[in-house]
Amino acid sequence: MINYFSSDFKLGILGGGQLGKMLLYETRKLDIHTIVMDPSDEAPCKIAANTFLQGDLMNYDAVLDFGRKVDLLTFEIESVNVEALKQLEKEGVKVYPTPNTLEKINDKVIQKQFYLNNGISTAAFSAFNSNKELISAVTAGQVTLPFVWKSATGGYDGKGVMIVKSQEALENIPPGKCLAEKLIPFKNELAVIVARNPSGEMISYPVVEMEFHPVANQVEYVICPARIEESISHKARELAEKVSDAFKHVGLLAVEMFLTQDDELVVNEVAPRPHNSGHYSIEASYTNQFEQHLRAILDLPLGNTDSKVAGIMVNLSGEENYTGPPIYLNMEQILKMPGVTPHIYGKKETRPFRKMGHITIVNKDIEQARALAEKVKNSIKVISEN
Amino acid sequence: MINYFSSDFKLGILGGGQLGKMLLYETRKLDIHTIVMDPSDEAPCKIAANTFLQGDLMNYDAVLDFGRKVDLLTFEIESVNVEALKQLEKEGVKVYPTPNTLEKINDKVIQKQFYLNNGISTAAFSAFNSNKELISAVTAGQVTLPFVWKSATGGYDGKGVMIVKSQEALENIPPGKCLAEKLIPFKNELAVIVARNPSGEMISYPVVEMEFHPVANQVEYVICPARIEESISHKARELAEKVSDAFKHVGLLAVEMFLTQDDELVVNEVAPRPHNSGHYSIEASYTNQFEQHLRAILDLPLGNTDSKVAGIMVNLSGEENYTGPPIYLNMEQILKMPGVTPHIYGKKETRPFRKMGHITIVNKDIEQARALAEKVKNSIKVISEN
Repeated sequence: MINYFSSDFKLGILGGGQLGKMLLYETRKLDIHTIVMDPSDEAPCKIAANTFLQGDLMNYDAVLDFGRKVDLLTFEIESVNVEALKQLEKEGVKVYPTPNTLEKINDKVIQKQFYLNNGISTAAFSAFNSNKELISAVTAGQVTLPFVWKSATGGYDGKGVMIVKSQEALENIPPGKCLAEKLIPFKNELAVIVARNPSGEMISYPVVEMEFHPVANQVEYVICPARIEESISHKARELAEKVSDAFKHVGLLAVEMFLTQDDELVVNEVAPRPHNSGHYSIEASYTNQFEQHLRAILDLPLGNTDSKVAGIMVNLSGEENYTGPPIYLNMEQILKMPGVTPHIYGKKETRPFRKMGHITIVNKDIEQARALAEKVKNSIKVISEN
Repeated sequence: MINYFSSDFKLGILGGGQLGKMLLYETRKLDIHTIVMDPSDEAPCKIAANTFLQGDLMNYDAVLDFGRKVDLLTFEIESVNVEALKQLEKEGVKVYPTPNTLEKINDKVIQKQFYLNNGISTAAFSAFNSNKELISAVTAGQVTLPFVWKSATGGYDGKGVMIVKSQEALENIPPGKCLAEKLIPFKNELAVIVARNPSGEMISYPVVEMEFHPVANQVEYVICPARIEESISHKARELAEKVSDAFKHVGLLAVEMFLTQDDELVVNEVAPRPHNSGHYSIEASYTNQFEQHLRAILDLPLGNTDSKVAGIMVNLSGEENYTGPPIYLNMEQILKMPGVTPHIYGKKETRPFRKMGHITIVNKDIEQARALAEKVKNSIKVISEN
């Protein structure tokens, strides 16, 4: 086995946001040497990495030069230069998740096609090279309102996704390659995180249940375990593992899915990295998702994904109408509540709906956790003086 | 309430070893700005602090200059210049734990006297200004073999403590102020960590049970909860809280005690900081000891000290006969075991019995955890090629 611990092995991480920051808790815990690159000089990963470099993640040369400095390269964000990753792979640098998988996932049209090709159930869709093509398809009656528009690329935190119900909304669709997806009336939105290592060892986390903020379309509560029938949760984990295996994925894969009115599971989309829906694991799981990501990409044995206790995660997003240096209102109140852990990402400026942190509520009783989560949500606010 | 989070509030930490390193996971989690000083350029805290400064912790001017840069000063090691801390307090810098308490604790004679003055049960002792005074007391029959010799100052990890059974051992006692303590035949060695904030809010952790390595006199297993009667554990927590309250302590206080053959509890000694006996709390407790230390010194509400699961901690110490860059043997084996979390402190050199890390084993069933701990202990080794 490679000696990763207190050794000269170098792990490169593209992206220095909150996911990278939480990943660094684990590299510190195991004393794995890290080098992080991020475009921002104020990235949350600036400290706690052994070396921090400022650089453009979409720039071919910047990513190539960075990758040549490390033994193994991973990323905490999908918007990176994939061509550079491919070149690095050719040069013998291990890149996990693989550029090949990332490329498939980064284009939602290719991602959806991949599900069809691999017999993975997903919402029916048609693909278009531009908004114009889509509009004429609607006019020609090939696509009927309402439907879900998804940009082929660049979707993140609710951006690049829109439910199109009216002719007017149709005209507001941005240009570019996209797909129109059948609007699925679902009971529940679920997610399963799967870890897989290069040796093919694979393990999934319990199913989590998600509630979205109606306006910002960001996750508001993540509840683990999902309050669904055991048989459905079993099917959901099987489906997620099927997806990870189809990609021959290495690292973490967060699989978002819908539970339809008639109890069918359809895959919505995936993220090839630690995921917002797995933050609860830091406090609730035997092996948190960030340690698990390290275990997976380093081809170490995967850890136990069971939960010690029930966990609920509340996103801490910037309040509307506030932009500037953040103030975290009522922290003292929530710190009084049992089993409540705030995570402050350390962003220098709050903006409406910007993810500034998250709060985990753990409890042996999930209903108590849910009640506390509501209190937390109603107490803490991120505002600014400016 | 002071705005500690993503603000310009500066927390100073004296000492950059593993305790500081684990404390920094929590300052990062809450985005509290930290400045750390340590004599070593290779201290585990060198990264993850906002600023790291190299300096002598026993040097009056170095500590004074450092303290003047921060809003609140704490320490992760007792060997710091207390006079400088007192001066900083005069100048209005908050110093927690207080220099006054630290001074009492740093001199074991004063510490023991403090217990007597405050009606806290502790082993009978006599104090001496030198080893010569002690030896003549033995000759005069005022002190009888066997007894426990403790140096008044500088005791740490089993140094400065010795069981004196023979005339020969008596002659090997180092010079300096010391005490001779009645040797107490005990069933069990226990520890309770108490957190107390400036507002006087106080809370204790469950009682842990300790097993020591016979040669190195370092803790080998820390077991939480201690496998003792509920009534005794209740008494132990009361006693520990009495000690914290007597000191009007601010921060964490680890109270080590003996359970005598006839079920009496006597205080052995205390440490005014996060403690080896509390490491299990990172994986097992609702609020780990490092977050709790921050809550206490910042006068925030204290967190829930209950455990989610049973926890056992195994120290990872350097094997005998190895000195040099560490190699962690059989990490893969222990990572296969469920609920096993290694913590590698990141020290550049292993030495016989040097604390290089620790491993936590958590499980819903304490007996299973204990069995796994044994396996862990027998698997992992810290060696070196040199």
